[in-house]
Amino acid sequence: MIPTSLDWCQEQDRNDPLAPMKDRFDLPEGVIYMDGNSLGVLPKGVDARIADVVKKEWGQDLIKSWNTADWINLPARVGRKIAPLVGAKPNEVVMADSTSINLFKVAAAACRMNKGRTKIITEPGNFPTDLYMLQGLSDFLGPDVALQVVERDQIIDAIDDDTAVVVLTHVHYVTADMFDMKAVTEAAHAKGALMVWDLSHSTGAVPVDLNAAGADFAVGCGYKYLNGGPGAPAFLYVAERHQAAVKQPLTGWFGHKTPFEFLDDYEPAGDIRRMLVGTTSVMAASALDEAMNAFEGVDMMVVRKKSQALTDLFIALCREKLKDHGVGLATSENPGKRGSHVSLKCENGYAVMQALIERGVIGDFRAPDFMRFGFTPLYLGFEDVYRAVEIMADIFETGFWKEARFNEKGAVT
Amino acid sequence: MIPTSLDWCQEQDRNDPLAPMKDRFDLPEGVIYMDGNSLGVLPKGVDARIADVVKKEWGQDLIKSWNTADWINLPARVGRKIAPLVGAKPNEVVMADSTSINLFKVAAAACRMNKGRTKIITEPGNFPTDLYMLQGLSDFLGPDVALQVVERDQIIDAIDDDTAVVVLTHVHYVTADMFDMKAVTEAAHAKGALMVWDLSHSTGAVPVDLNAAGADFAVGCGYKYLNGGPGAPAFLYVAERHQAAVKQPLTGWFGHKTPFEFLDDYEPAGDIRRMLVGTTSVMAASALDEAMNAFEGVDMMVVRKKSQALTDLFIALCREKLKDHGVGLATSENPGKRGSHVSLKCENGYAVMQALIERGVIGDFRAPDFMRFGFTPLYLGFEDVYRAVEIMADIFETGFWKEARFNEKGAVT
Repeated sequence: MIPTSLDWCQEQDRNDPLAPMKDRFDLPEGVIYMDGNSLGVLPKGVDARIADVVKKEWGQDLIKSWNTADWINLPARVGRKIAPLVGAKPNEVVMADSTSINLFKVAAAACRMNKGRTKIITEPGNFPTDLYMLQGLSDFLGPDVALQVVERDQIIDAIDDDTAVVVLTHVHYVTADMFDMKAVTEAAHAKGALMVWDLSHSTGAVPVDLNAAGADFAVGCGYKYLNGGPGAPAFLYVAERHQAAVKQPLTGWFGHKTPFEFLDDYEPAGDIRRMLVGTTSVMAASALDEAMNAFEGVDMMVVRKKSQALTDLFIALCREKLKDHGVGLATSENPGKRGSHVSLKCENGYAVMQALIERGVIGDFRAPDFMRFGFTPLYLGFEDVYRAVEIMADIFETGFWKEARFNEKGAVT
Repeated sequence: MIPTSLDWCQEQDRNDPLAPMKDRFDLPEGVIYMDGNSLGVLPKGVDARIADVVKKEWGQDLIKSWNTADWINLPARVGRKIAPLVGAKPNEVVMADSTSINLFKVAAAACRMNKGRTKIITEPGNFPTDLYMLQGLSDFLGPDVALQVVERDQIIDAIDDDTAVVVLTHVHYVTADMFDMKAVTEAAHAKGALMVWDLSHSTGAVPVDLNAAGADFAVGCGYKYLNGGPGAPAFLYVAERHQAAVKQPLTGWFGHKTPFEFLDDYEPAGDIRRMLVGTTSVMAASALDEAMNAFEGVDMMVVRKKSQALTDLFIALCREKLKDHGVGLATSENPGKRGSHVSLKCENGYAVMQALIERGVIGDFRAPDFMRFGFTPLYLGFEDVYRAVEIMADIFETGFWKEARFNEKGAVT
């Protein structure tokens, strides 16, 4: 039995080795923010850094800043900061574009490396943009390569000698179900398939070890647990062993061996920079660069332990306080098998979430009926979790959500 | 004969209807900035806007800002602001990704619309990323589609019944040579080919009328004459008549008809939003959005007239003051045939440009031997041009550039 008393929660906060980390962020007053899995909060220092980028680097120094502020190396520099969070070598990660575009690049590159194989495997209910990008890719590749969408419990059996690449999201965006990265990667490799992991709902919240898993490629998001700001640049990983051979189709000048020689013929950079395409937003990149400092000295195993404790507590509190309200758990009860968010299934989930947000508890809603709550150990405490469930219980008990429901014309379906 | 006296230049500045526009920008002190064709200066208001985006929209309001600050519609909103500068309808332009990625999307879409045709035509010496992206695309499309690189005076003859798409940059990034957009587009259409224009070195400096030219697709840059900041998002244009049919391969969730229903199957938005891919950086997009306000009430014909006067003056001054220094003009003498920058060919161009920069005249160098000077009528004046050439003449006469040359070990080849 997990203790669920307020006293116990407060004691956990007092003993929490990560409690001081909260000071690294500018949190809004009076809000319990449980949506860091969608958009991370503002790390301290980012506003000053961006003001400097705008007023000095851009406004005063203008094009000189490509060299003096080292804008040119931002993609690799930020990549090096992300690498340790995903178990990669410093030269295996680069910041670039959006998660969607990076997925296209690595999946296309994998199909090329496994030319002749006819299948891309993923799962239904994967994050939509992953499905969409793979649909676009297989459509573009013509009849030679087809996307096969396989239920997660049948994926390993579906991987065969015709499989070019398996593309999966490590932590599911709704259920938080987490794949065994090493086991699935090994199953793919056993059949000669390549493995792409989408780490969008993992990086910064769950320890990831791409090298130990033997992963070939990965992509991930900069604006969730990495707190890089809305629409922050994404990142991608290419295992060192593939870097000399990998060919991705978006061959832009920033992926060229010598972009500033302005040559007519494309020749890819010798390293992971060949995965770059065009010019990166320096503001967006600098925000993520600065945000990554919030992870300085943070042990991801300690983060994981707290994340599991917070999600365990949340589930126990929901079970205790919401038991009469028809709320179901859509996330695994086994803390080893879930990421750092929890989804509740609830018929009136949209309206209840609106009511929660009005009362300062920020989670989000995912169709058709999931309320999703993120647990970001660097800035969420145990008492926060207690208060959030207490408010949710009050919303159910007072029927407050029903009002919200009828105020939101047509929004609840 | 164009007058070249200082008095005349000062009088031009006094009579310049665009002179007050300079107040819309935060220019560094003591600098004559002639590189707005590479990176535009900081428009006033951008720093305050970005501070608000960071501290309030992100920091305080967090995910609510997708609605309350209308983040979700930034791509279309900024597109609508750019549209009048390129002769497009408000629903024909959208802000998205980088120029490179946009070029891939529209060129791929054009190849699909003209399926069965085997050629993509462009010119040698086009901006490198355009060549590289087209190389990547044709390579990816396999043996059915090949890139044909044709000298510019032979392009119209090269367009034939096998040509899927012609991709050209309206104003050349080195020479500033400007295509006759309407004539080339009509020649392409006469053979059933589609036309893609890269407007990176045109938009905001040269009047462009995509609708009048009958252009099919276009792409352009946000960080040059639009002053959107380093690595600002780019934009793309799809003629309204193509929007219902156009299919681009980077089918990300922001191009979906209903992205927030999180459906498994991609269905493109009914309008130009189908050209979007992933999440845009809100900071980068907001900077460009704010920067576009500098064009409020600006008549592009007045901009063009001043641009031609400034470039005429620069060429006349160079001819007068640099005549003994082996400097050649790499840009057309006909102001109707060039964009808004001028390139000088000069054996020691790299060292001379370094010396110019040291003395506060910021242009840039493009291999192998071009010094490039941009003329941005909203913030550059006639006296600025006079002073710039005066300083350049002094550099040649005192041999100052020779020192620069020897200080830059290995940089001059």
